[in-house]
Amino acid sequence: MSLPALFLLRHDATAPAEPDGTTRSHVASVEQADPSDPQVSVADLAATRGDGIFESIGVFGGRAQAVDAHVARLARSAALLDLPVPDEAAWRDAIDQAVAAGADDEAFLIKLVLTRGDEGGDRPTAWAHAFVMPDHTAEQTAGIRAVTLDRGYRSDVAETSPWLLQGAKTLSYAVNLAALREARRRGADDVVFVSSDAVVLEGPNSTVVARLGSTLVTTPPSLGVLEGTTQASLFEHAIAVGLSTEYRAMTVDEIRAADALWLLSSGRLLAPVVELDGRAVSTDPEFTADAVAFLRARHR
Amino acid sequence: MSLPALFLLRHDATAPAEPDGTTRSHVASVEQADPSDPQVSVADLAATRGDGIFESIGVFGGRAQAVDAHVARLARSAALLDLPVPDEAAWRDAIDQAVAAGADDEAFLIKLVLTRGDEGGDRPTAWAHAFVMPDHTAEQTAGIRAVTLDRGYRSDVAETSPWLLQGAKTLSYAVNLAALREARRRGADDVVFVSSDAVVLEGPNSTVVARLGSTLVTTPPSLGVLEGTTQASLFEHAIAVGLSTEYRAMTVDEIRAADALWLLSSGRLLAPVVELDGRAVSTDPEFTADAVAFLRARHR
Repeated sequence: MSLPALFLLRHDATAPAEPDGTTRSHVASVEQADPSDPQVSVADLAATRGDGIFESIGVFGGRAQAVDAHVARLARSAALLDLPVPDEAAWRDAIDQAVAAGADDEAFLIKLVLTRGDEGGDRPTAWAHAFVMPDHTAEQTAGIRAVTLDRGYRSDVAETSPWLLQGAKTLSYAVNLAALREARRRGADDVVFVSSDAVVLEGPNSTVVARLGSTLVTTPPSLGVLEGTTQASLFEHAIAVGLSTEYRAMTVDEIRAADALWLLSSGRLLAPVVELDGRAVSTDPEFTADAVAFLRARHR
Repeated sequence: MSLPALFLLRHDATAPAEPDGTTRSHVASVEQADPSDPQVSVADLAATRGDGIFESIGVFGGRAQAVDAHVARLARSAALLDLPVPDEAAWRDAIDQAVAAGADDEAFLIKLVLTRGDEGGDRPTAWAHAFVMPDHTAEQTAGIRAVTLDRGYRSDVAETSPWLLQGAKTLSYAVNLAALREARRRGADDVVFVSSDAVVLEGPNSTVVARLGSTLVTTPPSLGVLEGTTQASLFEHAIAVGLSTEYRAMTVDEIRAADALWLLSSGRLLAPVVELDGRAVSTDPEFTADAVAFLRARHR
């Protein structure tokens, strides 16, 4: 077997809601399928409405990273979108099969996708898609240039306006991709989103972490950013090597003056920001290299 | 032939960008396909990122409504998302075939979808899907209950932050669907989005129009709302029957005190709002019925 590989999670019809309003999904079977064949209906709410959720798990040297954190975040995203509770055992089975399928590949991604299913239907659509990722060594060592872009939202919308789905990893990523195209138009590689009340949020597909003295700081999820799975692992590493960690709101001026600044994600892991809005940012190549090695070597 | 019916627009590889940066798409063939078969790849950016655009065209008594306006808006959405310019002749061909397929149906929708295609690929994915719509007579006559919900954005973001894609009809509709679920939780049927600076915007899949005295008023597209195809036709009708029309920002207090308030869309046409945030709103059943009849009878 080799990559890409695709595993379809065939769901039973979703059972009626329990007294507390939750519904649970049950996967009848996990079937391998050909990712080069069409597998999704034109009536699927993923294809017509971006109405579903996803996770991307990095696999390095046969080790799927932070599986517990990804599975937990999938469940949190499902709750925010009023999707049925994911069938955790089936997802773990699909992840295991995807890891096995990539046994010959040193580094790859497994994308988990759970959609509301066909419009008017009675069950979710779901798959795990494993594919080789590009080599990110250059970004991890030479770093990336980022620009700050207005996300349009105040930093309190996750609390005031939960229907905006901030904090859920939804399939509705058109804005995130448009922001990345805007970065490229500005001669940069990536984006740091800023709230309309000037709080540093997150990247379009990454978590922002700054080193301020001996403390790693990131934005708290209560401000409408995704809980970072890679960031959580990095914080464990930081504590182990004697740094402290903190979740708090940061300003753009603070991250611009940081001792180091990174964008964290499951595939690229730790990308140092060497330039923000055209101005140089300090870097910490030794810590970055150590952290990348730590993150690649994690066990689930 | 009968509905549902599906027509795939098979694209050639997108040609290199022209000197002004635009790219054009060319459809090699329009093929009928079975909508109950899977047609979309798990690598399609529609299915994984909501990265594409759509239109919904109402067809009544064999007449596809406002086709020029829908085709023009598809092109505007494509430009906002840096998608290749749609192949207009092919889209019109697909619409004609879909109209013919529904010859036995009094009222149906044709959904046009154009996606960025498979990730890393060289051509868009596109289809026209024709399907019978639910009967909206009850909503057109008895009306709907709506709630106002914060859209989170200031009313100027379409100008300050074009990467937020306000004004583009994208496939990333998870927030719109979440807002509709929130409305149902509040015992209502639909939503009027309001900007963070308190301007009435639009519905999750509709245009807001209020009658204030003898003037029909709607929010201007410069404030980040979609240009309404049904609203444009309604304004023509209004002028023909002696009303005036205006595009301007409205407050929630203004629409609450309106002489009539409607949510407009291609399938449901004109749904009078009879209750907003739990308070009764004035209605104009005679104008509503006339307008619905006018909108159903339009020719392209």
